[in-house]
Amino acid sequence: MKFLQTIAVAASVVACSVSALAGDFSPIKTTVPERPAGVTDMVAFAAEPIDTVRVGIIGLGMRGYSAVERYLHVPGSRIVAVCDIEMPMVDRAKKLLDKAGVEAAAYGGSEDAWKELCERPDIDLVYIVTDWKHHAPMALYAMEHGKHVAIEVPAAMSLDEIWDLIDTSERTRRHCMMLENCVYDFFEMNTLNMAQQGLFGEVLHVEGSYIHNLDEFWPYYWNNWRMDYNREHRGDVYPTHGTGPACQLLDMHRGDRMTTLVAMDTKPVNGPAYIERTTGKAPESFANGDHTMTMIRTANGKTLHIQHDVVTPRPYSRMYQLTGTKGFANKYPLEGYAFEPEQIAADSVPDHENLTAHGFISDAQREALTQKYIHPIIREVGEVAKTVGGHGGMDYIMDYRLIYCLNNGLPLDMDVYDLAEWCCLIPLSAISIENGSAPVEVPDFTRGAWNKVKGYRHAFKN
Amino acid sequence: MKFLQTIAVAASVVACSVSALAGDFSPIKTTVPERPAGVTDMVAFAAEPIDTVRVGIIGLGMRGYSAVERYLHVPGSRIVAVCDIEMPMVDRAKKLLDKAGVEAAAYGGSEDAWKELCERPDIDLVYIVTDWKHHAPMALYAMEHGKHVAIEVPAAMSLDEIWDLIDTSERTRRHCMMLENCVYDFFEMNTLNMAQQGLFGEVLHVEGSYIHNLDEFWPYYWNNWRMDYNREHRGDVYPTHGTGPACQLLDMHRGDRMTTLVAMDTKPVNGPAYIERTTGKAPESFANGDHTMTMIRTANGKTLHIQHDVVTPRPYSRMYQLTGTKGFANKYPLEGYAFEPEQIAADSVPDHENLTAHGFISDAQREALTQKYIHPIIREVGEVAKTVGGHGGMDYIMDYRLIYCLNNGLPLDMDVYDLAEWCCLIPLSAISIENGSAPVEVPDFTRGAWNKVKGYRHAFKN
Repeated sequence: MKFLQTIAVAASVVACSVSALAGDFSPIKTTVPERPAGVTDMVAFAAEPIDTVRVGIIGLGMRGYSAVERYLHVPGSRIVAVCDIEMPMVDRAKKLLDKAGVEAAAYGGSEDAWKELCERPDIDLVYIVTDWKHHAPMALYAMEHGKHVAIEVPAAMSLDEIWDLIDTSERTRRHCMMLENCVYDFFEMNTLNMAQQGLFGEVLHVEGSYIHNLDEFWPYYWNNWRMDYNREHRGDVYPTHGTGPACQLLDMHRGDRMTTLVAMDTKPVNGPAYIERTTGKAPESFANGDHTMTMIRTANGKTLHIQHDVVTPRPYSRMYQLTGTKGFANKYPLEGYAFEPEQIAADSVPDHENLTAHGFISDAQREALTQKYIHPIIREVGEVAKTVGGHGGMDYIMDYRLIYCLNNGLPLDMDVYDLAEWCCLIPLSAISIENGSAPVEVPDFTRGAWNKVKGYRHAFKN
Repeated sequence: MKFLQTIAVAASVVACSVSALAGDFSPIKTTVPERPAGVTDMVAFAAEPIDTVRVGIIGLGMRGYSAVERYLHVPGSRIVAVCDIEMPMVDRAKKLLDKAGVEAAAYGGSEDAWKELCERPDIDLVYIVTDWKHHAPMALYAMEHGKHVAIEVPAAMSLDEIWDLIDTSERTRRHCMMLENCVYDFFEMNTLNMAQQGLFGEVLHVEGSYIHNLDEFWPYYWNNWRMDYNREHRGDVYPTHGTGPACQLLDMHRGDRMTTLVAMDTKPVNGPAYIERTTGKAPESFANGDHTMTMIRTANGKTLHIQHDVVTPRPYSRMYQLTGTKGFANKYPLEGYAFEPEQIAADSVPDHENLTAHGFISDAQREALTQKYIHPIIREVGEVAKTVGGHGGMDYIMDYRLIYCLNNGLPLDMDVYDLAEWCCLIPLSAISIENGSAPVEVPDFTRGAWNKVKGYRHAFKN
């Protein structure tokens, strides 16, 4: 009778008004597959250095074509092969490569063309930029063929896919990184650096979201895969842009880990209305709520709050907010910091004698602070990144770091457990919502290794 | 085996990964006392008109003294008596009244002095501005003595208090209003008016909070009651400033009602640290987390998100945000609106040919829209309110409306069920948090009358 114990604890608040209490409030648990004997975790895993990383890119549509463009500028790498199911996409990419004088093999025109790419012996890294449903199967196949993999977001859509990626990465000792670009945006990186330097005190609460009205984008997804996915699934189906930066701030599986998740959504209105407006026929069913929220608690008593909304007329926002014991940061709708005055008193910001924790610091103070706490990676490649572009530069920094770490035999910035933690909101938020916002236990994807490394840090060569 | 049915629904997502499932995921239910025979609800209740409302004020500290100041300016009312447990507070208020030439009885100096005020036959309205714990007992006593009551926030701290206030208000046919001032702030009122005119389409999701670093205020609460309350209770102990405006936007118990709530908090760090810093001794226990979140779903599939944080160094925020199918509004950290262009195309805002749903409208457009959709109450008393003051004018508008409705025999802007819905987060969020963020059923405080009135509206005399 676990519940009776629980309610005894709650008695001070509940008084005599609680009765008709139903059931057991343990969170819903999901299966954690056992790690096979002889296999070890991938925390802080580093592969042998690779002088020039030979890249094969699968998927040459919206994001894939941009990746080809960017890799022409990433030092230490070379595009060896490209692939798309649609030949016009392949031809477009080939034209770009030819123009740049890069000789690359091309695959396409069939459902299985990507397998040939994965099977080539002269590829080190398979870079997967397809629709969501093909991400995990392609990555698994590539790792089985000895390749490191980098997978667009979300890399996995179900717990089965997540555990398969973990098991395969651990067994094959291949990197399995998700291409979460938002952790490389300038404000996020500089703020992460401030957090790591202790400016915010202890970070207690973080927020993130994907709030992006996709009305103008829906027609461009191959085979309508993205809208179809929303039509068929409840839950936060696209959580990683909000969750990634939040998890890095909380040192997730580097001394802390998510334990419990609850989620809630609104009814779907604009989702099905879009289908009716564009096809003339209302869908018989539509699963995904217009607005979805998830709350997560960690082993160390921190919280995350994540939102998803791709159908209402809202200005773009990834929320990105952190609440610390000594400071606060906020990116949307405007970039702002607030601190206990003593936190930055030594940083010789302008007008520091008038600091107050009750308001955002001034633009001039923020500028001075950003200059002082600019993230070393931004300092190194920020200007180049802005030139090459890709969401304001963050895409380039992501690729740059991936290749840099592979070149130097360093742990990547994001490992397979980051992938798991950031993607697990997709199936777990659905389970919570479909069971009346019941709490769901977040598995320890490291299976015991979440406390080995203390604090998230980027790796650098000596 | 309700659970087996539930999980069957969820099977599409859960696939083979869910096992070891625990328990029944029905929300936790609390007792709903039966309404006594012959008693009816107070929805849209109006009392006999009162020419001049005779007011007795209990509590003359921070908020109470300001109330005395304001009531010197509210037409249709007269302060008849004042009371405080501390005589210096009584003397201070008396001095102010004397100066204004208002003859009022004064009570004080004992724990029970307020009862004498409630017992006076020449009082119509008892206005309660004490510490949280005395709100409900005083209101009950005043209603039993035939008085209408207005109670500072939060009016009730437990489900027992909430149901006692409802039962007593229904039986005595006396108004029982909570003094939630934030529903009278200018941006909130004008935005509510826009929402009621359909500018945002269907309002799907609303947010609100009390984020206010109270470091400088803690020493001023009589007997340390506020910090003591936080030390002893988990949950969102001060939810009404965020919840009130959100609930008005969602027509709560005027066609919709809250059904399920889940809450989560961080560990307490700054709360106990404050006690240690100011007393030299760490508290043996501290219940309230530094940051608390609550999510609520309604019968019509809408959602609310509410936060509480009074101890971290964050700029003041009540969040106040609404997501509609056709528009979006946001008050903190900056006031902004976004719309599907056709929503305001006819409103002749400047530069309307360049409207986009992807960004906030310009300052000039917002100004034009605010002029057009200014709330009739703001139009009527906004300027006077700014002169009299009280949180920028909203306190005055609150008092003005309370007296106006009593003068004219109209339903008040906020009834006892608003009080119940906005305060119930205190006990219900605690129950959820103390049971691992389990879902908790929100009772129908109207006991069946939540769908009688369609849409929230302020009452006006003909």
